[in-house]
Amino acid sequence: MQSIPEFINAALPAVRGLMPYEPGKPIDALQRELGISDIIKLASNESPVGPAPGVQRVLESGFDDLSLYPDGSGHVLKDALSTHLDVTPAHITLGNGSNDLLNLVAQAFLGPGRNAVMSAHAFAIYTLATRAVGAEARVVPALPADSEQPYGHDLPAMAKHIDRDTAVVFIANPNNPTGTWIDADGLASFLEAVPPHVIVVLDEAYFEYVTESGYPDGCRLLAQHENLLVTRTFSKAYGLAALRVGYGISHPALADLLNRLRQPFNVNSLALAAAHVALSDDAHLAKAVAVNRSGLRQLAEGLAALGLDQIPSVGNFITFRVPDAQWMYRNLLAAGIIVRPVGGYGLPESLRVSVGLPEHNDRFLDTMGRLLTS
Amino acid sequence: MQSIPEFINAALPAVRGLMPYEPGKPIDALQRELGISDIIKLASNESPVGPAPGVQRVLESGFDDLSLYPDGSGHVLKDALSTHLDVTPAHITLGNGSNDLLNLVAQAFLGPGRNAVMSAHAFAIYTLATRAVGAEARVVPALPADSEQPYGHDLPAMAKHIDRDTAVVFIANPNNPTGTWIDADGLASFLEAVPPHVIVVLDEAYFEYVTESGYPDGCRLLAQHENLLVTRTFSKAYGLAALRVGYGISHPALADLLNRLRQPFNVNSLALAAAHVALSDDAHLAKAVAVNRSGLRQLAEGLAALGLDQIPSVGNFITFRVPDAQWMYRNLLAAGIIVRPVGGYGLPESLRVSVGLPEHNDRFLDTMGRLLTS
Repeated sequence: MQSIPEFINAALPAVRGLMPYEPGKPIDALQRELGISDIIKLASNESPVGPAPGVQRVLESGFDDLSLYPDGSGHVLKDALSTHLDVTPAHITLGNGSNDLLNLVAQAFLGPGRNAVMSAHAFAIYTLATRAVGAEARVVPALPADSEQPYGHDLPAMAKHIDRDTAVVFIANPNNPTGTWIDADGLASFLEAVPPHVIVVLDEAYFEYVTESGYPDGCRLLAQHENLLVTRTFSKAYGLAALRVGYGISHPALADLLNRLRQPFNVNSLALAAAHVALSDDAHLAKAVAVNRSGLRQLAEGLAALGLDQIPSVGNFITFRVPDAQWMYRNLLAAGIIVRPVGGYGLPESLRVSVGLPEHNDRFLDTMGRLLTS
Repeated sequence: MQSIPEFINAALPAVRGLMPYEPGKPIDALQRELGISDIIKLASNESPVGPAPGVQRVLESGFDDLSLYPDGSGHVLKDALSTHLDVTPAHITLGNGSNDLLNLVAQAFLGPGRNAVMSAHAFAIYTLATRAVGAEARVVPALPADSEQPYGHDLPAMAKHIDRDTAVVFIANPNNPTGTWIDADGLASFLEAVPPHVIVVLDEAYFEYVTESGYPDGCRLLAQHENLLVTRTFSKAYGLAALRVGYGISHPALADLLNRLRQPFNVNSLALAAAHVALSDDAHLAKAVAVNRSGLRQLAEGLAALGLDQIPSVGNFITFRVPDAQWMYRNLLAAGIIVRPVGGYGLPESLRVSVGLPEHNDRFLDTMGRLLTS
């Protein structure tokens, strides 16, 4: 162990104290550690149906241009997105995953003496991005476990936590890892209560999966709420997590600010091209959503049959409670099934399982049943 | 034109004033604007020989895993780099291009009240990354035009500009867009003069191209200088600019800090795999370097024959002076040749041309000759 050199103390205090994000365990890592094969990963809310088949052609024809920088303006993808979303290209900011957008908004609006308001049990990057720039992450207790949206965002309470030093509010709809969601009326009331100088980041990473009536489309709220940044991603329903592409939709003045702040070539060429193809394949997206709906039901019913409490979810994952989450996590790993511990999300007695293909969901439920009775 | 909404004034002052990076014009953009084809781009210091052929296999086999997140630890590539560089994996930070590393070091060590020291005519991202976090970019005049390294870094002058508020020094070796370089003795003297609490970023983006004796390998200086961060990239000699992968080599304590600060999945899966393949193909790298050496000579001799002043370069580009840089840039565009204006680098009377294949260099030189006598 080397000693810590003097210059590390010159780093900003907020950065010195950062805890790293804990990703889902990769399949390779489990293979190396336990020497097992036939592993299924239900740990990172990845699409079990993969991306649109046409993306294959992007890879087949991609080699010749690998030495060229990406189009830093993302011209082609932004044009396609603007048609898809019925906004102008000037409303769009592309990111290296929507994570990039979350960091950019923190870098633009947060810093020492400012705070961001967010819910307990919300996506970990909100607190990380906020603390990385030296701002306060103001984490508001979630709705109670016996409410209609257990562990969901308590929007009225969040609104009360906004003060003159609040620059950003992070809202996830639906939220990961709880799978809870906010209806149009609840969101509208909240947006009315937020002062106009506060940016509201509405994270819709799982937007495409939600089929509930009353679920609001953030893009349709931009006209009334100039301080809104809607973020979406190609990593979930579009099945392109490997390539890193997400986007923000906002007032053009905010998009202009974020575009000046982002790295000039933040999104790689294959991601730009693959996202463009993925966006045009409505049938594949419909299939991904349908597979998720039936898989979500399969898991919900299976977990209920095992007598386990779960948080009702509209995403592509379910968080459920087990008698000993660490023991269950380790034993699922040993059986070749990777799920996600959510202790870091304030849910130490729970695990999160992502929706897989029907046979994956079956294997997970069967293994759980065996482990619970062992 | 919409009015600027109130919340934009809530952005940090430094961010509101940011000027965007001006990339080289993409081939597609020129096609759209002028309706011409048969375009060559010599504007972004991209490799004309492309990446190692084996990278093709990465694309061919990449489709099946596109829905999975990248390995956020970059385990396989870091292992290969650590062998290649004779350091441990704990010394390495992977980035979405080396641009990512430059931003991370600014985010970790710079902010209001702090400054970064850099040379005039140095890579634009140094000032951008510094100003984005509200720190002062202290730009030190370069060596005079009649010196041995015209427009090169004046290291003794840079050392004198370091004060108690200096947290970072950016050094490019060689520098873009000047192509100037620093020898081992000059660098050693400078590093001795830098206080130990100041991070020295040694940007070696063009490292692989340099064959001059006396050119120092930054990685060999890490043992004596704990405050050093060497950055390199797969975007230049390795021909993978499209995929975005760079890396930093530093004391493990600094690497740990940057790894906690970076986005968890900052490098995409295909970039990780392609860089791994590229790193193993010594013959292809040697070819890229050889093509560059002869192309650099071809351009240098051709520009001299046209009677144009040039800055002697060891990179994969040459900056040269023309009677009217804007006129020449536009007329080269009209002839289907994209070069780079460098007015933004304090060289408004010059253009920068990247080394292409021999036939590209010929076409550039022939067109220049025609335009100069028209």
